[in-house]
Amino acid sequence: MRIALIQSNPLVGDLNGNRAALQQHCVQAAAQGAQLALAPELALWGYPPRDLLLRPALLEEQDRQLDQLCRELPPGLRLLAGVVEAQAEGLYNAMALVEAGHWRLVARKRLLPTYDVFDELRYFRSGEQPYWLDLPSDGGKLRLGLSLCEDLWVSPDILGYQPQDQDPVGDLQPFGIDLLINLSASPYGHGKRALRQQLASAAARRLQCPVLYVNQVGGNDELIFDGNSFVIAPNGALLCTLPCASSAVACWETPTPPTAAPLPPPLNPLISSPAEPDRDLAELWQVLVLGLRDYAHKCGFRQALLGLSGGIDSALVACLAVAALGAEQGRALLMPSPYSSLGSLEDAEALAQRLGLRHDRLPIAALMAGFDQGLSSVLGGQPQGLSAENLQARIRGTLLMAVANQEGQLLLATGNKSELAVGYCTLYGDMNGGLAVIGDLYKTEVFALARWLDSGAAAAQRRACGLPAEGELIGAAIRDKPPSAELRPNQKDSDSLPDYGLLDPLLKRLVEDHASPEDLVAEGADRQEVERIWGLLRRAEFKRRQAAPVLKLSARAFGTGWRMPIAAGG
Amino acid sequence: MRIALIQSNPLVGDLNGNRAALQQHCVQAAAQGAQLALAPELALWGYPPRDLLLRPALLEEQDRQLDQLCRELPPGLRLLAGVVEAQAEGLYNAMALVEAGHWRLVARKRLLPTYDVFDELRYFRSGEQPYWLDLPSDGGKLRLGLSLCEDLWVSPDILGYQPQDQDPVGDLQPFGIDLLINLSASPYGHGKRALRQQLASAAARRLQCPVLYVNQVGGNDELIFDGNSFVIAPNGALLCTLPCASSAVACWETPTPPTAAPLPPPLNPLISSPAEPDRDLAELWQVLVLGLRDYAHKCGFRQALLGLSGGIDSALVACLAVAALGAEQGRALLMPSPYSSLGSLEDAEALAQRLGLRHDRLPIAALMAGFDQGLSSVLGGQPQGLSAENLQARIRGTLLMAVANQEGQLLLATGNKSELAVGYCTLYGDMNGGLAVIGDLYKTEVFALARWLDSGAAAAQRRACGLPAEGELIGAAIRDKPPSAELRPNQKDSDSLPDYGLLDPLLKRLVEDHASPEDLVAEGADRQEVERIWGLLRRAEFKRRQAAPVLKLSARAFGTGWRMPIAAGG
Repeated sequence: MRIALIQSNPLVGDLNGNRAALQQHCVQAAAQGAQLALAPELALWGYPPRDLLLRPALLEEQDRQLDQLCRELPPGLRLLAGVVEAQAEGLYNAMALVEAGHWRLVARKRLLPTYDVFDELRYFRSGEQPYWLDLPSDGGKLRLGLSLCEDLWVSPDILGYQPQDQDPVGDLQPFGIDLLINLSASPYGHGKRALRQQLASAAARRLQCPVLYVNQVGGNDELIFDGNSFVIAPNGALLCTLPCASSAVACWETPTPPTAAPLPPPLNPLISSPAEPDRDLAELWQVLVLGLRDYAHKCGFRQALLGLSGGIDSALVACLAVAALGAEQGRALLMPSPYSSLGSLEDAEALAQRLGLRHDRLPIAALMAGFDQGLSSVLGGQPQGLSAENLQARIRGTLLMAVANQEGQLLLATGNKSELAVGYCTLYGDMNGGLAVIGDLYKTEVFALARWLDSGAAAAQRRACGLPAEGELIGAAIRDKPPSAELRPNQKDSDSLPDYGLLDPLLKRLVEDHASPEDLVAEGADRQEVERIWGLLRRAEFKRRQAAPVLKLSARAFGTGWRMPIAAGG
Repeated sequence: MRIALIQSNPLVGDLNGNRAALQQHCVQAAAQGAQLALAPELALWGYPPRDLLLRPALLEEQDRQLDQLCRELPPGLRLLAGVVEAQAEGLYNAMALVEAGHWRLVARKRLLPTYDVFDELRYFRSGEQPYWLDLPSDGGKLRLGLSLCEDLWVSPDILGYQPQDQDPVGDLQPFGIDLLINLSASPYGHGKRALRQQLASAAARRLQCPVLYVNQVGGNDELIFDGNSFVIAPNGALLCTLPCASSAVACWETPTPPTAAPLPPPLNPLISSPAEPDRDLAELWQVLVLGLRDYAHKCGFRQALLGLSGGIDSALVACLAVAALGAEQGRALLMPSPYSSLGSLEDAEALAQRLGLRHDRLPIAALMAGFDQGLSSVLGGQPQGLSAENLQARIRGTLLMAVANQEGQLLLATGNKSELAVGYCTLYGDMNGGLAVIGDLYKTEVFALARWLDSGAAAAQRRACGLPAEGELIGAAIRDKPPSAELRPNQKDSDSLPDYGLLDPLLKRLVEDHASPEDLVAEGADRQEVERIWGLLRRAEFKRRQAAPVLKLSARAFGTGWRMPIAAGG
């Protein structure tokens, strides 16, 4: 049987549009000779639909779209797609078999992720039995094991933790299935492509059958679905993969007899691929470009705006914006204050020129003086210290929003995760924007991605998204200067923060592992330093609550997967 | 047996401070002759602890605090308190019996709310059996049924929906319990006090025993816990209540024999109390004052700042701020633009004078001109339309933040729910602030609360929180003027929005009931109007995502219980 994997990029909640796109993908699949097509988890909805699932009218709309889809399906093609099943007792995250003229529900998701960004138990009940389906194939039948996303996440040795109580893979063992299908909506995370393949490989070996893993692709708010769908052989070897970060329809043929083709060696049991740092960075770049492009386009923006300071964060975001939307769709403002160095300004302009990005200087000294004068009457003097520093950032943020509003652009926030963690950022100032593009990259990761982008290793990626492929893009002047917000004379980040090389690993332990300061001290960190960082991290919660959505890259990004009280002690 | 109900106000995550406060409450209980004390759900943590529950170090800390608490407990007093139970398979929302010298776990919460603002299945597993406890009492023994919050929410006729699969109340029926204990952390909602009493009353009648319901009190970020703990008789009658919106320790004596005292008539089965609108408004006022005070104090602020426009929203927030923190701890800025009416300015000043609130005029015309001039160079002309209107709001927001930063004040956002719903508010402008005090009151509800506050019915409440008790506070000039943002000449809200009397009921159906535009049209609303409102509601999602925490009052507030995608279609 020829099976098509449809790696589709839905718009959340657009049931009609997603149905129409799926129908087109099915036409492509049929044209490639497929008898069966597989679409991702909740393919008609886009994942995650979040509280759209609470709207009864949308549930009715889904069934109308499925009715239409089965009327439009190419003859001879069957489709397995993720849908919502509405029952009197509640909803299920389910799978439908769509055939010419009718459709029916064939499986329910059993393991419902309710951690990090996932809230599935808010919406769904669990399926409580193994699900499989017999389809006619080449005169005989093919028995398909059916699973949805998390149902495959059951191997404690690979996951490093004991998963939920049910074992949807093991429960299929008695039923002699010929193929395991997994329809997923699994967002990008560092090392996650390899992790998914390991889990599918383990399932293939347990069930002694191939595994077909179909993932959603595209950016939906904070989450970037990288695609990277694949097929695994019964011995656990990787047979084929679909692209990273773009939609695709690809076919795979079930072997007849199953042992006919020689199999490649099984997958390496390592979760991450330390030997492939450039590939990891290339993939990181690709998903960031995708996440930014999809957020802009799915929100209805063609153009983006950002403030360019001459520092590395806004430089990287400028490169990403040009890669995602095109140089002609971007605009940058340079807004020097009396504390801005001439070097920074020149570096920013040189970068914008290399990128072909429209850019303008808009000095803020006069506005600073205007605010100082106005505020003096109510403060009994000019703003001082942090208040004065924040004021500069807010003048810039207000200028950027005025331009973005007037020209219909998406303003991009350029802060990184280290800053968001310790509150080294100004609410309603440099935090302004519709999307925090690199808000889940620590400063050291920003440097690493910038170095990769400037290296020969990035040439293919740069070419692929229309960036100049030759020479340095960000450049050593920006990459090598000491980080500074330039909000007072000769200010450096290192005046008030530890070196990022020291800070970032500590933040990672505190944020991503929920470690305590005591843990870090026990691991050798300086107690006073750790307690200061801990205090900064906790006190910045009010800023993060009002931050723009952060494109999620790590195991724990600030945003919907980080749910901390603001008013808290201890 | 004399039983003390401890209605305590914890600081989330402050295990040490909450333990110390609980110990003091136990001393009070013992002084009142209590043999048993009851503290709310998760009493040591404060509810909701949210992702603090993911920190292993805090789980260990809890057990140390419980060890200390049982060492400090007054002799002869036992305490039942909500705690976290950590097991290898996961956490439970549990109950501990603390006695002099030792403590042990005695119950697990069975129904874990995972809807609206609640995420309990993110953290906890469910208890799966009925829990009870025999305590010695007057030579015999008393059998206590043990339940936690949602475990009481099992009556479909009262709730209007079919609750979860388990029936923790019914499961206790075979065990002949003498008393049902419910330790809760149930946030305020319109009509919720009566609803809780109805549910407890139904449980009392099913189990033929008294119900003791102990609720947390205090504001924790968005959530305001109103207290209102109570005791219900076996016939369902309300025996005694603890205060609304303040902490308290009160004792109740188990009757000996149980039938000795004549019982009051049972509770009216109505959920809301339409005959008591003034009591409802008084309670609404009290919880808003509590929510504002606790958010400020628990975040470390003594002082608050707000922009006073002369409109009703900022007027009401000014009254709440003075009630919560004291007039001497508040400050207001009046920031007229050329479009501000003289009347508004005078109304704002008159209100500030009535409240004894420090206030200053800070005109923004010069700053508007400064921005216009600066922006002209990059826009090819001055900002126009919405861009120009937003600019005024952002200048004001920047001025307010500068003063709040310089003086260490909490800036209060003054927008209402109608504005947040349709996006009639400026991100990084009038949305600025640490707390959106009335962000869960529709405009019509703002008017209703203002009318109540100005009426004789509010005199006692006004006196209780130090406001002038005589005469009108907000005044007819502010209450009766047509709503206007005054961002362009002669602008009125009604230029671009339907009358709030028409708009608010539609918004309530769309937001709180997840109704569809089709539903509203079927109910008689104008299709074109509904579709316009629907479009405004959906397009404002990006603003709401960056809004300040909104004090939750309704069944569906914008904030942690409203989880909508931003980039969405359909």
